[in-house]
Amino acid sequence: MGRSIVTIDDLTNDEIENVFALADEFLQRLAVDGKPERLRGRIQLAEQCVLATLFFEPSTRTRFSFESAMLRLGGHILSSADPASSSAAKGESIADMIRVVQNYADLIVIRHPLEGAARVAAEFADIPVINGGDGRHEHPTQTLCDLYTLRREKKKLKNLNVQLRGDLKRGRTVHSLVYALARFGANIITSSAPGLELPAYVVRRLQRDYDCGPIDVEGLPDDVDGVYVTRRRAVQATLPNLPPDFLIDVSSKGFSSKDFRKIDIFYVTRLQSERPDEEGQKADYPVVSARFLKDRRYRDSSVLHPLPRLDELAYDVDQDDRALYFKQASYGVPVRMALLAALLGLQEGVLAKSKPAGHYPLYTRRGGIACLNPFCVTRNEPEQNYLASKFWILEGDALTLRCLYCDHETTPQCVGRISTKRYDTDLSRWTRIPLEDLIMFADRNAAHAAGFQLYKSRSREHDPLPARTARGVAGSGPPNAAP
Amino acid sequence: MGRSIVTIDDLTNDEIENVFALADEFLQRLAVDGKPERLRGRIQLAEQCVLATLFFEPSTRTRFSFESAMLRLGGHILSSADPASSSAAKGESIADMIRVVQNYADLIVIRHPLEGAARVAAEFADIPVINGGDGRHEHPTQTLCDLYTLRREKKKLKNLNVQLRGDLKRGRTVHSLVYALARFGANIITSSAPGLELPAYVVRRLQRDYDCGPIDVEGLPDDVDGVYVTRRRAVQATLPNLPPDFLIDVSSKGFSSKDFRKIDIFYVTRLQSERPDEEGQKADYPVVSARFLKDRRYRDSSVLHPLPRLDELAYDVDQDDRALYFKQASYGVPVRMALLAALLGLQEGVLAKSKPAGHYPLYTRRGGIACLNPFCVTRNEPEQNYLASKFWILEGDALTLRCLYCDHETTPQCVGRISTKRYDTDLSRWTRIPLEDLIMFADRNAAHAAGFQLYKSRSREHDPLPARTARGVAGSGPPNAAP
Amino acid sequence: MGRSIVTIDDLTNDEIENVFALADEFLQRLAVDGKPERLRGRIQLAEQCVLATLFFEPSTRTRFSFESAMLRLGGHILSSADPASSSAAKGESIADMIRVVQNYADLIVIRHPLEGAARVAAEFADIPVINGGDGRHEHPTQTLCDLYTLRREKKKLKNLNVQLRGDLKRGRTVHSLVYALARFGANIITSSAPGLELPAYVVRRLQRDYDCGPIDVEGLPDDVDGVYVTRRRAVQATLPNLPPDFLIDVSSKGFSSKDFRKIDIFYVTRLQSERPDEEGQKADYPVVSARFLKDRRYRDSSVLHPLPRLDELAYDVDQDDRALYFKQASYGVPVRMALLAALLGLQEGVLAKSKPAGHYPLYTRRGGIACLNPFCVTRNEPEQNYLASKFWILEGDALTLRCLYCDHETTPQCVGRISTKRYDTDLSRWTRIPLEDLIMFADRNAAHAAGFQLYKSRSREHDPLPARTARGVAGSGPPNAAP
Repeated sequence: MGRSIVTIDDLTNDEIENVFALADEFLQRLAVDGKPERLRGRIQLAEQCVLATLFFEPSTRTRFSFESAMLRLGGHILSSADPASSSAAKGESIADMIRVVQNYADLIVIRHPLEGAARVAAEFADIPVINGGDGRHEHPTQTLCDLYTLRREKKKLKNLNVQLRGDLKRGRTVHSLVYALARFGANIITSSAPGLELPAYVVRRLQRDYDCGPIDVEGLPDDVDGVYVTRRRAVQATLPNLPPDFLIDVSSKGFSSKDFRKIDIFYVTRLQSERPDEEGQKADYPVVSARFLKDRRYRDSSVLHPLPRLDELAYDVDQDDRALYFKQASYGVPVRMALLAALLGLQEGVLAKSKPAGHYPLYTRRGGIACLNPFCVTRNEPEQNYLASKFWILEGDALTLRCLYCDHETTPQCVGRISTKRYDTDLSRWTRIPLEDLIMFADRNAAHAAGFQLYKSRSREHDPLPARTARGVAGSGPPNAAP
Repeated sequence: MGRSIVTIDDLTNDEIENVFALADEFLQRLAVDGKPERLRGRIQLAEQCVLATLFFEPSTRTRFSFESAMLRLGGHILSSADPASSSAAKGESIADMIRVVQNYADLIVIRHPLEGAARVAAEFADIPVINGGDGRHEHPTQTLCDLYTLRREKKKLKNLNVQLRGDLKRGRTVHSLVYALARFGANIITSSAPGLELPAYVVRRLQRDYDCGPIDVEGLPDDVDGVYVTRRRAVQATLPNLPPDFLIDVSSKGFSSKDFRKIDIFYVTRLQSERPDEEGQKADYPVVSARFLKDRRYRDSSVLHPLPRLDELAYDVDQDDRALYFKQASYGVPVRMALLAALLGLQEGVLAKSKPAGHYPLYTRRGGIACLNPFCVTRNEPEQNYLASKFWILEGDALTLRCLYCDHETTPQCVGRISTKRYDTDLSRWTRIPLEDLIMFADRNAAHAAGFQLYKSRSREHDPLPARTARGVAGSGPPNAAP
Repeated sequence: MGRSIVTIDDLTNDEIENVFALADEFLQRLAVDGKPERLRGRIQLAEQCVLATLFFEPSTRTRFSFESAMLRLGGHILSSADPASSSAAKGESIADMIRVVQNYADLIVIRHPLEGAARVAAEFADIPVINGGDGRHEHPTQTLCDLYTLRREKKKLKNLNVQLRGDLKRGRTVHSLVYALARFGANIITSSAPGLELPAYVVRRLQRDYDCGPIDVEGLPDDVDGVYVTRRRAVQATLPNLPPDFLIDVSSKGFSSKDFRKIDIFYVTRLQSERPDEEGQKADYPVVSARFLKDRRYRDSSVLHPLPRLDELAYDVDQDDRALYFKQASYGVPVRMALLAALLGLQEGVLAKSKPAGHYPLYTRRGGIACLNPFCVTRNEPEQNYLASKFWILEGDALTLRCLYCDHETTPQCVGRISTKRYDTDLSRWTRIPLEDLIMFADRNAAHAAGFQLYKSRSREHDPLPARTARGVAGSGPPNAAP
């Protein structure tokens, strides 16, 4: 079957390091040999393999980087660049499409506007699938390239001061990067454009999954609106084979503004204007220019940018030695070569046989609560014919469900037992119900609509359902009509 | 020059069997070797060859299946997926386009919305051309894959009960399949959606070309609206090397409903909504589900579907062992590999040097009657600059012309002699006129407009032309105007 | 770094001859070997190389010809056919795009609607770039194929009578061809469609750069509206290694209509309807048919056409032995193979290390006069962030600037010194100002708007600026408003 890479969490830290080591090796092998000096050449490793790219959203850049990696590996490509020329235009589901296309290739890269689409593809394919971007959700190979650039340039990731600037609200690359930085123990310093701060769910996830949280530091520059550091060993300890000095122990250490004054990496992002829910904030978007970078905090800052840039990064930075964004783009080829070689089974020992286990219990159910993200793949019409809702159950102050497909978080108001058709509003009761008997609902009305009744001991202490909903969700009478 | 495959009739039964044998061999060779087990690998046969795909209609699936086949054969591909990026946007004719593109490749696969476009391409190319779908007309490699799936699964084609369900009116795959089934002696059982029955011209062709006709059988299930069996040896006898027991002799045999109760193959098709002349019949379209297949008629039925599916085939069938549609899709690669290898001359003995001769006399003429199918390639503006009308003359009760390009049938009302500029309304006279002197007209007005006069012995027995048309077809006076 | 080919002038005559000799060799090598006879095969030369095609305008033909050439050379391709699927849709600049894509390939072919786009790409790429067509500007490999066809067919280029027919105003192929013919000493005979004559700037350039000018000849056929011959040795002498008898000396020779009566090459072009500024002249567009070619002037004329054709070239010419246009198309592969092999450094001795020097001084400046061509790449918004104006300074009766990017000519009205912020209206003064201190302005208002003042000795002899402009270009009052 092989592994798929849908999010950066499908790789352990160790596996990421292995991929990077292989990328180093490929970089070196491409550079030497008896080739005319202007050529990078190819490595004869994947002559037996075909890569198919399925791009339902435009991106020549990302598609070419995968296809080039495959060609440089000695392999072959099938290329699909145009959403309009696809069978999706005939209303085909992702599951069907992928089960057909898997016959044509040995590995598939998919880019799709629906969040979670790549996960669905990976579930149904019996060959490896790489997520080349699924809506606003994930773009894991971009994150790998970012990390690889940091590691090559700064030789380490731990304790690096990484400043993120611009649209931290909607850019998928920046969210993935934030999680990855936390995993490797870097310090995250945010300088958001007004109204485009890191969303609350990203901060919650940083805390919950990576034990990385915001800290209060006095005396930081005005443009810094957040500092996040990894706090405990707990999460990192799930990653085997780390050298003992890898992890910092935040609890034993006080921070001061001095610790975050010198920026190692300055990561600029563009306004995500091609994504929905934009409000024309371009006017206030900060511009990084040669002049801006004269600030001595940035004296040794490597400047990264996922590209393409718009106006947020001036052209006069290009000549600066600190400008690494084109180098960053160039690393896309060796990193993707390494990932392809590993997933195709051409290079042993890079990836484990199976992907890292999830940290949380998995709830899978048709019926009951569904993901509320309107761009989630589970909300799409053809996908509703065969996909169940799948959520990670996050334990904490409140019961939170995180969609397996799109990572959107949602909160149920009732938990029920399928066998008894009873539900309860005490959410903590979910732990007493076996997962295979568990169902959750968005609210009491939904539970009732599904034919569930309130667990008896509760019904005594609770109010009845509000009058309007007691008459049923399908009631079409005017709200103020007499009973 | 090489052979081209425009319709399934461009291959004899023998050649089809040869292609299938080669596909079997390729399937086996792809599966073994010292490759990492998850890889299918490649066969080094076509390293010298380039395949060009010219897709003027969207179909990632079909394009990928050809391109994958070429890559698996060791060959190379040029890919054109987007109608808008083609020179057709500049008004170029198919003949010109193909005469340029043939310089870039060793074989061309073309998909085009005009019916007959692939035939035109094949006429003008000096390299082989494969029809990857021409409007509603033909898609011969889909038919080959269907047949190959049947043969691999059921080990034979003769006497198989094949039930076809859904839109039998407009799907090109189903018409080609029906002809092919008839050629191989399978029994065809139709279960059409209301209003989407097998068209009369398909039934006529079944009878005329393949000696396969509808039979009356009492006591069949309600959903069956037709049964067609091959009746005589005549047609099949044109196919050499068939084993003597291959052919059934319908005349010596009585049929009962028992003969058609057990379905070997259940072939589901989708509503052809992307084609013109649709009327929104989706509401009544039958759905095949796991429950539906519980009927004991279908106990041993393999379920096929050309994919993509819409709602006509429920997802709960996917887990059923009888569901073969994804396997059917997977066979597209070895079958197309075999066809490519044969057409490229890389594998001797699969195809004869020249294609099977037509069964009927061929009428070729500029001027006179033209094909009435509005989607026929001969009706397209740039093609009218260089294409003559070409019809097969079908002998029967009435004189019928079948367009060489699109297979549409049309009926002339006059036959004429070019040398004498006389025409006759006794159509049977055409046999007395040498083909190179023959011209036919849609009606008497068209003959007159072309400067032909009625053959004398007729003019005495005939009425004059009706008053309105005698004044010419261009007459613009109101119909009721006084003379 | 390698060489790029943006215009035909990026190659010397010698280099063109070398490319043609290599194309001859490739043609021969493709034809032989132990391949099945219907295959052209491949040459194992570029196995280490990847070609990327970046097509921002539709052209399957041109793209395929490059990609086929790369595959026939043994190389590999990345293909981008669709402008909508590109990062240009995200507002990315050409410079950024090319600096990313250069990591994915060893050579880039770009087609772009902006004139000069390929020059920008070549400036920023560190791999070779080939111009596959930039708006109405240049399409140098088409010109190479045209020339190659002439040379193969007529064995020479010198003194050939080449008649150009049709739209000589807007076709980029015809302008490039005209320059190339002049360079090789062919005689150019024009038969333009009404209103579509060779533009004045093309004629000026013929004279200025190639010393080729119109001559008056009595008694020529009515359809000839111009004859151009190379006049002096001066320009040609810049081309080394030419055999002494290569050049004609027009000054020593009188011409008569007899010299141009027999046409060696008849080059037909189509109406450039896909380009802007069209006015529906199709009605009068001349048609070349078999009948037309019966004129004895054309008895030995090879008929060429860059294809695709519309109605200007009748299909009845196709069967004529003189019709060479499909052969011309077929030569696209070996010519492009030769060019690719040379640019990739796979074949030594074809191209010199650096491109031919420009004939004129180069003026480079941000601010001051800009190119007036609205389709020039320097006028495009993202490009204005980083591109300076660059002009060749053409010395002649008047001071003329030719845009380095789009070759559009423009005329400044003032020259200034940056160091003193003074300008002068005596344009001849530019020679006294060092290039690095020189600035030019479209007019005096522009100079004033930029803060420049008139050189003192001039201000005494000149009128003041006209009243309206003295109040500033941004004045928004109505023209007739009282002061």
